[in-house]
Amino acid sequence: MVSRLRSIDWFDGKVRFIDQTKLPTELVIVETDDHKVLIEAIKKLKIRGAPAIGIAAGFGIYLGIKNFNEDDKEKLKISFENVCDEFAKTRPTAVNLFWAIERMKNVFHKNFALDVDEIKNKLLDEALSIQKDDIQMCKQIGLNGAMLIPDKANILTHCNTGWLATGDYGTALGVIYTAFEQGKKIKVYVDETRPLLQGARLTTWELMQRGIETILITDNMASYLMKLGKVDCVIVGADRVALNGDTANKIGTYGLAISAKYHGIPFYVACPTSSIDFNIKTGDEIPIEERGSEEIVEFMGKRIAPEGVKTFSPAFDVTPNDLISAIITEHGVIYPPFEENIRKLKEKISFRD
Amino acid sequence: MVSRLRSIDWFDGKVRFIDQTKLPTELVIVETDDHKVLIEAIKKLKIRGAPAIGIAAGFGIYLGIKNFNEDDKEKLKISFENVCDEFAKTRPTAVNLFWAIERMKNVFHKNFALDVDEIKNKLLDEALSIQKDDIQMCKQIGLNGAMLIPDKANILTHCNTGWLATGDYGTALGVIYTAFEQGKKIKVYVDETRPLLQGARLTTWELMQRGIETILITDNMASYLMKLGKVDCVIVGADRVALNGDTANKIGTYGLAISAKYHGIPFYVACPTSSIDFNIKTGDEIPIEERGSEEIVEFMGKRIAPEGVKTFSPAFDVTPNDLISAIITEHGVIYPPFEENIRKLKEKISFRD
Repeated sequence: MVSRLRSIDWFDGKVRFIDQTKLPTELVIVETDDHKVLIEAIKKLKIRGAPAIGIAAGFGIYLGIKNFNEDDKEKLKISFENVCDEFAKTRPTAVNLFWAIERMKNVFHKNFALDVDEIKNKLLDEALSIQKDDIQMCKQIGLNGAMLIPDKANILTHCNTGWLATGDYGTALGVIYTAFEQGKKIKVYVDETRPLLQGARLTTWELMQRGIETILITDNMASYLMKLGKVDCVIVGADRVALNGDTANKIGTYGLAISAKYHGIPFYVACPTSSIDFNIKTGDEIPIEERGSEEIVEFMGKRIAPEGVKTFSPAFDVTPNDLISAIITEHGVIYPPFEENIRKLKEKISFRD
Repeated sequence: MVSRLRSIDWFDGKVRFIDQTKLPTELVIVETDDHKVLIEAIKKLKIRGAPAIGIAAGFGIYLGIKNFNEDDKEKLKISFENVCDEFAKTRPTAVNLFWAIERMKNVFHKNFALDVDEIKNKLLDEALSIQKDDIQMCKQIGLNGAMLIPDKANILTHCNTGWLATGDYGTALGVIYTAFEQGKKIKVYVDETRPLLQGARLTTWELMQRGIETILITDNMASYLMKLGKVDCVIVGADRVALNGDTANKIGTYGLAISAKYHGIPFYVACPTSSIDFNIKTGDEIPIEERGSEEIVEFMGKRIAPEGVKTFSPAFDVTPNDLISAIITEHGVIYPPFEENIRKLKEKISFRD
């Protein structure tokens, strides 16, 4: 099954995952059949990226009851629910985590009439489905988005939205990988993405692993790069998209979008439709998390700013819809007018609402 | 003479300077009458900022011949020229350095008929003049620029352009200090200024030393800050200004200017007229230095990107004149149309050309 390196995978009865805290200086692959190792890995950000966390939870819940060797199904139920609770506590705000736990719970209850071993098998099947569904969704986002990428393209991206964060491919990076696999000549400029440097640490590494030409810049170099004509399009992910297309994403996205507009460069958002919040009319309603000052005043334990300096550290910003050229989802590419076209998408995907 | 902390000053026959490599975690003030200590300090960036380097060279050249105790003036001349050469080799591209050395040489040759002690005194006078002239020029830039600052202002700045880099006040920060001294209520947002973090390390520190409210952000937060209405104007320095007002400054300035324009926020450049290159018609003619990758792939000595990753690292960018609201100089504020008004300034300041 391990045809190529993935951030998390199932192999011979065990989970294999990349310890992302060791990147980019070391590639450490952990193999485990102990669900407690996975819980610790999620807590310590060794496994990160909402979809990857969801996949880890699926496999982890199966591993947590795999060794249950009695026939008492009420006892199995208690064990199962304890394991689910343990995973639910790892990253309490991760939506994909709860969605994955919910899928595992549904399968458990639906199949509770079966033998213990049969229930276990159903749980493993579901965990594998969670992984497969995520990979499939990313693949579809990639295919839909790759149509927008010219045969020869210099692409600028921000933060990490690739195979490290998902089952495979990724969202914004999924578009890049797909275009690359289609034989297009791709060069990717990567914003280092301050303050946590996901671009420098993770995105460069995973692109290089797949053999894509990768050039690292500091965030503040992006505008000048555009001016020099070195950027054909910008692709970013999304944390949350409002009904009108306004998009919350990693801090710095908004400035990139302004610069792209100024230079007449297409600016694409790639995300699953599950990131579209149909209950929110505009980006003004999206709450923006503010982070502590230590991420800015220290780096790797080294102080870089004076003691007592104040900081302002929003984790995300909101890019208004008029700066976005298209939103790429697994159900197709949404173009302006976004409000109208997102409503149409909502009607189309009957599984939601 | 030391009425307040300056980056470099003359006190009781000695030079006192702040070791800027120790900031912001330690304030180390070095006192010396040994010109070799100053040469080393310039080489090791303990003294940095073009005007501060010029001042150091002035004092250093005097200190280099201060202990010459013979009457043989030909020997004095050889000593003097050796010292000048030593300073000229410290930072070979710093314009202010050569300008300061030239001033010292002119005084030496003009007064060569005098006694050795009298020549020495003339040289000290000239070094003090270099310092005084720089402070006076910064003060005048500050006064001219402060008129543009409202009584209550949130100001965004980039890189370090303050009293650490000059005799006192600074250029862009000089405007801020002057407005503050005039009793205006000032809050300053400081871009950390990747890759070398001059904003985080130096600008925050020097603003806080003078009691100004200072808030540090990463460069990629600036646009969102503007969107929130937290920025009344942007002030930056300049490395070189073309005849049409196009301005080369620290990388990241251009993106800031685009965002300021998008949000309708005034964008000011503050610099001495010596930074205006009347021989260059537009910014396209300004060569942009590209830096080595180590500044990007390492962060304070710690590796943050994969081995072998490519980088693109321009030290400066060029902001076109149509994104600039005004250029503040010691001879007054220049408004658009810049080409016409810079030509008028050129005619006005007869000491040039």
